[in-house]
Amino acid sequence: MNYEQFFTDKIAELKAEGRYRVFADIQRQAGKFPTAYVHKDDTVKEITVWCSNDYMGMGQNPDAIKAMQDVAAGYGVGAGGTRNISGTMHEHVLLEAELADLHQTESALLFQSGWIANMTTLSTVGAMIPGCIIVSDSKNHNSMIEGIRHSRAEKHLFRHNDLEDLENVLKSIDPARPKMIAFESVYSMDGDISPIKEICDLADKYGAMTFLDEVHAVGLYGTRGAGVAERDGVMDRITIIQGTLAKAFGVIGGYIAGSQSMCDFVRSYGTGFIFSSSMPPAVAAAARANVNHLKNHNELRERHQERAATLKQRFRDAGIPVMDSVSHIVPVLVGDAVLCKQASDDLMERHNIYVQPINYPTVERGKERLRFTPTPHHTDAHFDHLIEAIKEVWGRLGLKDAA
Amino acid sequence: MNYEQFFTDKIAELKAEGRYRVFADIQRQAGKFPTAYVHKDDTVKEITVWCSNDYMGMGQNPDAIKAMQDVAAGYGVGAGGTRNISGTMHEHVLLEAELADLHQTESALLFQSGWIANMTTLSTVGAMIPGCIIVSDSKNHNSMIEGIRHSRAEKHLFRHNDLEDLENVLKSIDPARPKMIAFESVYSMDGDISPIKEICDLADKYGAMTFLDEVHAVGLYGTRGAGVAERDGVMDRITIIQGTLAKAFGVIGGYIAGSQSMCDFVRSYGTGFIFSSSMPPAVAAAARANVNHLKNHNELRERHQERAATLKQRFRDAGIPVMDSVSHIVPVLVGDAVLCKQASDDLMERHNIYVQPINYPTVERGKERLRFTPTPHHTDAHFDHLIEAIKEVWGRLGLKDAA
Ligand SMILES: Cc1ncc(COP(=O)(O)O)c(C=O)c1O
Ligand SMILES: Cc1ncc(COP(=O)(O)O)c(C=O)c1O
Repeated sequence: MNYEQFFTDKIAELKAEGRYRVFADIQRQAGKFPTAYVHKDDTVKEITVWCSNDYMGMGQNPDAIKAMQDVAAGYGVGAGGTRNISGTMHEHVLLEAELADLHQTESALLFQSGWIANMTTLSTVGAMIPGCIIVSDSKNHNSMIEGIRHSRAEKHLFRHNDLEDLENVLKSIDPARPKMIAFESVYSMDGDISPIKEICDLADKYGAMTFLDEVHAVGLYGTRGAGVAERDGVMDRITIIQGTLAKAFGVIGGYIAGSQSMCDFVRSYGTGFIFSSSMPPAVAAAARANVNHLKNHNELRERHQERAATLKQRFRDAGIPVMDSVSHIVPVLVGDAVLCKQASDDLMERHNIYVQPINYPTVERGKERLRFTPTPHHTDAHFDHLIEAIKEVWGRLGLKDAA
Repeated sequence: MNYEQFFTDKIAELKAEGRYRVFADIQRQAGKFPTAYVHKDDTVKEITVWCSNDYMGMGQNPDAIKAMQDVAAGYGVGAGGTRNISGTMHEHVLLEAELADLHQTESALLFQSGWIANMTTLSTVGAMIPGCIIVSDSKNHNSMIEGIRHSRAEKHLFRHNDLEDLENVLKSIDPARPKMIAFESVYSMDGDISPIKEICDLADKYGAMTFLDEVHAVGLYGTRGAGVAERDGVMDRITIIQGTLAKAFGVIGGYIAGSQSMCDFVRSYGTGFIFSSSMPPAVAAAARANVNHLKNHNELRERHQERAATLKQRFRDAGIPVMDSVSHIVPVLVGDAVLCKQASDDLMERHNIYVQPINYPTVERGKERLRFTPTPHHTDAHFDHLIEAIKEVWGRLGLKDAA
C-alpha cells in the first residue's frame, strides 16, 4: 500500500467537503485581552478574539503570570518524571488540595488535560468494575466517548438531557449490574445545561454512580466557581466531578475530584495517569493562582453572565439568529458549512473580528454556527463593533435572519 | 453495588501485594539540580535526585526559564482554546517548525504529552487505514499499547528486539494487507536499544510503515539530538517519529514528526489532538529553547554518556549488580518487590538519596530494580556518596551482589 497516498487522499476528501481546517495563528497579548495579533502570510494584524475558551481572560491574570514566572525561576520549567518516578512536585500537591477544596471533596487528581482526565477515568472505572454499564448522554464530548469506548464496558445512550429517556434506559438495565451515568453540565456548542439534581435523583433510585464533566462550568458557576453542581447545591451528590484548567482557569490541565478512595483508585490503576510525565510546577502554580482568584471573585462571574445576556439581546435586536442558550455561550446559526466558513473569513478579513466556524463533526450538518464567547473583558465598544460587522456580513452574504 | 467499597478494596489489594505507590513530594531547585527538597510529614530535607527523566537537567536551563517567563509576561499563561478554536499560538507554530528541523522532516505536530501523541497517532492511523495490521514490539510502552488497542486494528506481537521473530511475523501476514511496525529506540527500563536500520530493512522488504518512539532518546543521541535514528543515519527511513518534550527536553508535551501529509492527516482526524486545549505558549517557548540548546551542545551528550559509563563501572567495581544496558539508563537488579522498596526507602531515609523502586507491572516480577539516571550534573562527589550509600544498604539488607 502507498501510505503517503492514503494520507494525501484523506486530506483531499476533507478539502472537497469544505471541512479542511486552517488554524488561525494567534499571538495573544497579556494585558490587552481580547485584543490579539494574527499572523498570516508574513503579515501581522490586530484583531479582537471572540471565540476563546479563556472565558474569563484569566490567561492574563497578573497573579498567575507572576506565579508561573516565580516557580519557573525557583524550580525550573519541568517536573522531570511521571508522578511516581520523581515527577510529583510540591506544586501538584498544593493544586490538588486547592481543587479538592474548590469542589469540597476529599481528594482531587491532576492530569495533563481534561481530555486525558476523561479518557483515563472513564476507561479505568468502566473496565475495572466487573459488568459495569455506562449510561451516556448522546451529546457527550469526544473525550468521554473515547474513554467509554476504550473501557469496552457496555454502553447505553440516552437522549440529550432527556430525563424520561434516561429513566427508561436505567429501568431496562438489570438492577444488579453496576452502572454509571456520564454527562456534562454546560454543553459547550449549544450552551444548554443539564438537570443535575434530577439526574442524581435517578442515579439514587437506580443505584448508579454519576460522572459529571464540568469543563465548561468550573470557574464560571457557583459562588466559588466550582461549577453548576455548586450553583444547584448538589455537588456532594456527584461520584466523580471532572474539570479542566484550560478554559475559565486559563492555563492547561485537567482533573477529577471525589472521594479519597475513588481518586486513589484512578491514581493507582489509570494508565493515562501513571505512564505520562506530570505537568511543570510552574503550570500548576499558575493554575492554582487562577482557581484561587476565581474562588474569591464572584463579581467576575456576575459580569460574565451580564455580558453574555447583553450580547444575546443585541444579536436579537439586530435580527441575527442567536440560538437558544441558557449559559455564557452565544451560538449564532448559519446552517451551511461553506457560508459559515465564509462569514468567519469575512469577519476576520474585513472587520478584524476572529470567530471560528463550527462545522461538522463538532456539530450536526445543517447546524453550522459561529460560536461567540463574550468575556468580562469585552466592552460595549467591542459589542458595537461586532454588531456593525456582523450586520454587514449577514447582509452581503444573504445569511438567514432570526425567525 | 457499593462503589466506594469497590474502590477501597482495589486499593487494599495493592497494599497487600506491596505494590501501593506512595509519591515522593519533591521540590526541585533551579540552579542546584540534582539537589532538591523532599516534603514529608511537615518536614523538608535536602536530597540528591537519582531517578529523574530530566536526563540533561534542562529543566533548569536559564534560557528556557527566561523563555517561559518572557512569554508568560507577554502573552499570558494559557492558549485559551483547542488548536482549531483560537488555541493555535504563534509559539506552537515556531516549535513545530523547530521539531521538524530537528528530525529533518517536512512537518511536526504537537500534543500535550508523549502519551497522548502515541495514543492518538496509533489509534487514528490503525483505525482509519482499512485492514491495517500493527506489528508491535512486545516491550512497547503502555501509551503505544493503549493506542493500538484503541484503534481496534489487528495486532501481532514480535519478541522484543528480535529481528528473526519480526521477520517471521511479517512473513505470516498477507502481503496485500497494510501494516505498521511500532517500536521504540531506547527501552527505558532496561536501557537496551533497538536495531532501527535492520527493522527498516524488514519494513521495506515487507511493505510496512514504521512508527518509532524516541521518547528516551531525543535530545540524547545523534549529533543534533534527534535520537538514535539520527545517530544511526536512518532518520529518513522512519514513517512516523514520535518524541516527548518532558524528558531530555525538560518541559512537557509530545509530538510526532514525518511527512506533511501524515502530520496533516493526524492533525485532521486525531480526536486526542482535535478535542483538547493546546499547551500554553510559555511552555512551547521553554521547550523550543531546550530543543535548540541541545541541538547545539553535543558536548552535553558526550558528558552524559561518560557519566553513565562511569557509574556502571563504579557499580561493577563495588560488586553492585548493574544490569546490561547500552544506553544512559543504569538499572540495578534487586529481584524482589519488598526489598526493592526497602532499599529505596533506606537510601532516602539514611542517605538522602532518591531513587524510585521499579516494581511490577512496570517490569516483570523477579526483575524489580532501582533505576539510576545519572545526568551531566551528577559529579564524581555525587558518585562517591552514592557508592558508599548503596554498599551500606546492600550489606545491611543482604541484597544480591553482582554474579
Ligand atoms: C466537555 C469537554 N470535556 C473535556 C474537554 C477536554 O478538556 P481539555 O481541553 O482540558 O483537554 C473539552 C474541550 O476541550 C470539552 O469541551
Ligand atoms: C517509551 C515512552 N513513550 C511515551 C511516554 C510518554 O511520554 P510523556 O511522559 O511525554 O507522556 C513514556 C513515558 O512517560 C515512555 O517511556
